[in-house]
Amino acid sequence: MTLSLDQARTLIAATRNKGREMGLKPLSVVVLDAGGHVLAFEREDGAAPGRFAIAQGKAYGAVMLGMAGRAQMARAEAQAYFMAAVNGVYGGQVVPVPGGVLLRQDGAVIGAIGVTGDSSDNDADAALAGAQAAGLDAEA
Amino acid sequence: MTLSLDQARTLIAATRNKGREMGLKPLSVVVLDAGGHVLAFEREDGAAPGRFAIAQGKAYGAVMLGMAGRAQMARAEAQAYFMAAVNGVYGGQVVPVPGGVLLRQDGAVIGAIGVTGDSSDNDADAALAGAQAAGLDAEA
Amino acid sequence: MTLSLDQARTLIAATRNKGREMGLKPLSVVVLDAGGHVLAFEREDGAAPGRFAIAQGKAYGAVMLGMAGRAQMARAEAQAYFMAAVNGVYGGQVVPVPGGVLLRQDGAVIGAIGVTGDSSDNDADAALAGAQAAGLDAEA
Amino acid sequence: MTLSLDQARTLIAATRNKGREMGLKPLSVVVLDAGGHVLAFEREDGAAPGRFAIAQGKAYGAVMLGMAGRAQMARAEAQAYFMAAVNGVYGGQVVPVPGGVLLRQDGAVIGAIGVTGDSSDNDADAALAGAQAAGLDAEA
Repeated sequence: MTLSLDQARTLIAATRNKGREMGLKPLSVVVLDAGGHVLAFEREDGAAPGRFAIAQGKAYGAVMLGMAGRAQMARAEAQAYFMAAVNGVYGGQVVPVPGGVLLRQDGAVIGAIGVTGDSSDNDADAALAGAQAAGLDAEA
Repeated sequence: MTLSLDQARTLIAATRNKGREMGLKPLSVVVLDAGGHVLAFEREDGAAPGRFAIAQGKAYGAVMLGMAGRAQMARAEAQAYFMAAVNGVYGGQVVPVPGGVLLRQDGAVIGAIGVTGDSSDNDADAALAGAQAAGLDAEA
Repeated sequence: MTLSLDQARTLIAATRNKGREMGLKPLSVVVLDAGGHVLAFEREDGAAPGRFAIAQGKAYGAVMLGMAGRAQMARAEAQAYFMAAVNGVYGGQVVPVPGGVLLRQDGAVIGAIGVTGDSSDNDADAALAGAQAAGLDAEA
Repeated sequence: MTLSLDQARTLIAATRNKGREMGLKPLSVVVLDAGGHVLAFEREDGAAPGRFAIAQGKAYGAVMLGMAGRAQMARAEAQAYFMAAVNGVYGGQVVPVPGGVLLRQDGAVIGAIGVTGDSSDNDADAALAGAQAAGLDAEA
């Protein structure tokens, strides 16, 4: 299964709605496909200009490693030099904290959401809620 | 004036509508702000996975140089090494062909649209029509 | 449809067989998935050490642009600065000559073969024959 | 002595067999030559798309430093900034954990296996078993 643009837009809308409902700061939300390539992105008014790269970095690491943000953070806490090295081989594009959420269908990764703007944990919770609203299995 | 996310979404929707009306191949459309940073992006189903970087490269050069895609192409045709050097100082992020469209308000650049997917000229025409539908001054 | 490792191995074996049948120099053959990521690679004895990057560059540009090597070369001949700029936005990973062969299923790109070692045209012919032997639609 | 492609393929097959026998997650296995250049690679179905870079990073550091993954990890634990600096001079291509296994003949390094997919220790054990099955001296 391939994520469609309509699904990506639905994921972004649902994640943003959840952010508003939780009273979060302005969010930036990216959806990547199963190859780690950008399908859709939105940056809410008031967010800092550099948010695209952070959102992408959270989602990119999730897809490329097959490991969601919380697992990446646990590994970085346990073995910082490993995640630094992994980031090196991926061209410095990995941001290993919560907010990178894997999307799965029948167990296979079909893409990821990357969210940034509030605390990493809140970012992840908004993405999770977004995925659930869109009817997709997700892992934060 | 700052482009809002709602305006960026309107620009993308209007550009995509124009593409469909013109019968173009699947388009990928990015909107950058006045600092060259990504506000919103959508890649239509069937587009190649690498289209984000091309769309961004068209719009980024437009904002950073204050020169739309057609002017950049003219300069590249006349003086290829100059545009190659410009690309060097911008970290290789400039794609100097039509499809990078400047957005202006009262003469000042407020952002750019980058479109890729069909011929460069068609990409530019779709972006122009999108900007006009959204009520913004544009230069292709 | 996702290319399996078994399919990738079959593609490589068939491409190498064709190379031997044509009397080509030692070949290096990579198979990338639909996201441009490496599935399998083999470098024949006697090939130069740097062949992986060339094979990958031929296949990577094909997947990312959705444009096979011969079309990339035509574009580079017609508009060299455009392909140079495209290479810039893809991190210098694109080698726009024959030998990057798109694999399709029902019209959708499912990956690419990259071949290097002999003339670019012979490289492309070997990859095409490999794809046909493996029962996949291919475009050189 | 130079590793042949046939030996590289045997090493990969034996490593993958061991992984299956041990019940490991899908493995990705690269074989590099004595110059650190890719000879052959296979990524098993179900592995994350970014596994090539991690496998290569484990094997590359082993060849370039003449130090297998376990020794690299010990050095990283003792002196993280040193391995970070080493990574800098090698272009960010080193992943200093178990799974990078040196291959030797008469004491001289003739290449390395890089394995990723399960725990680093299991990755290393599979590579070691693969090297032994192929009749080569190995150091994990």
